[in-house]
Amino acid sequence: MNAEIISVGTELLLGNSTNTDARDVSRALAEIGVNVYWHTVVGDNPARLTECLYRARNRADLIVTTGGLGPTCDDLTKQTVARAFGRELYFDQEAMDAIAAWFGEQGRTFPDNNRAQAWLPEGSTVMANSCGTAPGCIFESEGVVVAMLPGPPRECNAMLKNELIPWLSRRSGQTIRSHMVRMFGIGESAMEEKLRDLMDGANPTVAPYAKLGECLARVTAKADTEAECEALTGPVVEEICRRMGDVVYAVDAESLEHRVLQLLGETGKTIATAESCTGGMIAQRITAIPGASAFYKGGFNVYTEEAKTKLLGIKPKFIAEHGVVSAAVASKMAKKARKILNADLGVGVTGWAGPDGDDVGLVYVALAAKGECCVRRLQLGRHSDRERIRTVAAHNAFDMARRYLTGLEI
Amino acid sequence: MNAEIISVGTELLLGNSTNTDARDVSRALAEIGVNVYWHTVVGDNPARLTECLYRARNRADLIVTTGGLGPTCDDLTKQTVARAFGRELYFDQEAMDAIAAWFGEQGRTFPDNNRAQAWLPEGSTVMANSCGTAPGCIFESEGVVVAMLPGPPRECNAMLKNELIPWLSRRSGQTIRSHMVRMFGIGESAMEEKLRDLMDGANPTVAPYAKLGECLARVTAKADTEAECEALTGPVVEEICRRMGDVVYAVDAESLEHRVLQLLGETGKTIATAESCTGGMIAQRITAIPGASAFYKGGFNVYTEEAKTKLLGIKPKFIAEHGVVSAAVASKMAKKARKILNADLGVGVTGWAGPDGDDVGLVYVALAAKGECCVRRLQLGRHSDRERIRTVAAHNAFDMARRYLTGLEI
Repeated sequence: MNAEIISVGTELLLGNSTNTDARDVSRALAEIGVNVYWHTVVGDNPARLTECLYRARNRADLIVTTGGLGPTCDDLTKQTVARAFGRELYFDQEAMDAIAAWFGEQGRTFPDNNRAQAWLPEGSTVMANSCGTAPGCIFESEGVVVAMLPGPPRECNAMLKNELIPWLSRRSGQTIRSHMVRMFGIGESAMEEKLRDLMDGANPTVAPYAKLGECLARVTAKADTEAECEALTGPVVEEICRRMGDVVYAVDAESLEHRVLQLLGETGKTIATAESCTGGMIAQRITAIPGASAFYKGGFNVYTEEAKTKLLGIKPKFIAEHGVVSAAVASKMAKKARKILNADLGVGVTGWAGPDGDDVGLVYVALAAKGECCVRRLQLGRHSDRERIRTVAAHNAFDMARRYLTGLEI
Repeated sequence: MNAEIISVGTELLLGNSTNTDARDVSRALAEIGVNVYWHTVVGDNPARLTECLYRARNRADLIVTTGGLGPTCDDLTKQTVARAFGRELYFDQEAMDAIAAWFGEQGRTFPDNNRAQAWLPEGSTVMANSCGTAPGCIFESEGVVVAMLPGPPRECNAMLKNELIPWLSRRSGQTIRSHMVRMFGIGESAMEEKLRDLMDGANPTVAPYAKLGECLARVTAKADTEAECEALTGPVVEEICRRMGDVVYAVDAESLEHRVLQLLGETGKTIATAESCTGGMIAQRITAIPGASAFYKGGFNVYTEEAKTKLLGIKPKFIAEHGVVSAAVASKMAKKARKILNADLGVGVTGWAGPDGDDVGLVYVALAAKGECCVRRLQLGRHSDRERIRTVAAHNAFDMARRYLTGLEI
């Protein structure tokens, strides 16, 4: 099945918002084995949207639109798509009831123009919106499946996962399952080199990708049942883990910090932070995960020398002796955070995040545990930007913690 | 001038990366008055890219491509574009020297396949890449301007701002200047209602937009000189500020936290933080700005009651009496942070970020100064997600600080 994603919204063409919907739909379709060959963005303009739809139905089996399902007069996707495929709109009472119920639940009165959202192309399967008012819909026309999703990313994502993907999977009569092998501490090309032969497989497929300091390999199988999928993916996931070794930090976890939190849960251990150049980023990433309070004892944002002294009790003389960006200061920060907060692990980070200075990109990350402390010296590049330096430093802190918690050398 | 943006990269179609380049190019073109009517994304596939280019040159005066300028065999943009417009590639020695110099500066040896990047379509104006190796280029063909930018967002952005936009401005012979009026504490539709008549103007234009809790109005003028632009935008910016009143937090600042840091600089004051539900997000946003250390005295991530007691000395009895999410606890956190870190201002935030619990979305944000303390009670919605609740809570903390520092009622 070949798909085209058409995103509708003038705000995208003005650069006022980012097309995360196209990314999310693409990723979800890739996971069930649908090839996406085109993304197109058009404004809230029926003529250009129609042009786009005519083209898409000649080159795709699946057209997914995002956006333009709102209640205002700008929102023209349903009308335009219906006309392009020669369908009338009908009033769907069930969809209407769901919209009214949503407003009731929010304790809001029902604005009359939201009635427009209950008009749908004839012959549609309605997709429920669990996060908003606009229902989505799917219909088939001369062998082409057309699906319309709402634009707001939360609504789009929920409908994609709860409605569209299950519908497409049922239709294909096939079950598709993916696993994601996640790695830290290896470059993308080094990973690809080790996995090249596996990437030639047809079922399961192995697809590599990279994000800021992390590498991932997605293993996807198609079969009649879930058990058959697992039987296909299992040995390949295992083989990837075997070849890549301990740079693999998890299969299917969401991120390094999710993995660390999971390990803290399994081992019953706790963590505390003292951050200089990352300035709260590590804390923020931990506390972005629900339930963090059971394992995160708290932290210090000690961006200045004064704060390092005042909050952590590191003597000015010690800082002067070693330099504020040094292994000694990072270690002391980690140890102090651990001790003051009575945690099992302490993290300390100090570095030059730039943009100015001779040593931009030099960062020390320390992890302290009972009776021991390890430090990584990172050289993240004088030409790196501040955001990248801080993010990769935080990644390293989490990686050190997960290595410690799984008994690996740091 | 009407533009089409073509982004090249299979990773975009797989959903492995987000098309921020198209957003950034769109925004920069909107600012100089170029209309963007289409974004298209194609994979690393010459046939589909060619199809796309043929279509674009029939409907656009300006085609901007992003991506596919790298040194590997996947990177086919230059060759494909040159062929589509009937041009040969030539070896540009100057571009080659710049690539070699870049490697030298990084202390890296020069890989042979990077030579490919110095081959450019005949008749091109070369655009220098200040952040990487791939040069960009511009040429004109039968009334259509074609510009190629690299894919990595940092490289794309730098070349866009330093090379492409100035080139387009010179070509148009017109000067274009924009100012951005930034607001917090008002909804998008309320803003639009107050500014509707101004939005009908042709020169300057006024364009509204909204991001998570913030509203913005961009005022753009075209004229022969910068002074004439300023003479056109000045009165309109002033009128917007007059109508909107003190919800305007800045003209042209990058964000609320930038504005707060600027005000701290002007008033010679300092700030400290104590964060529960935001868990380091406020600290992280302050320290993301270079030079923050002069004004940010440091902070506490006190996500648990234990940490509130241990780090801030707030008695368990006090917390039990008032509830951990309460105006009293938020105030106490702000005061303690201020006092311990000897700062002029202290911020305290406590709330329920969810996803579970009856009071999800209830947040108290406190700002303490000498002899006074204000608290905002926010009800951010039981259906909001964790990320939104934390982000809007942080916005409010910054907004309270900027109101205090400019002598407004909080």
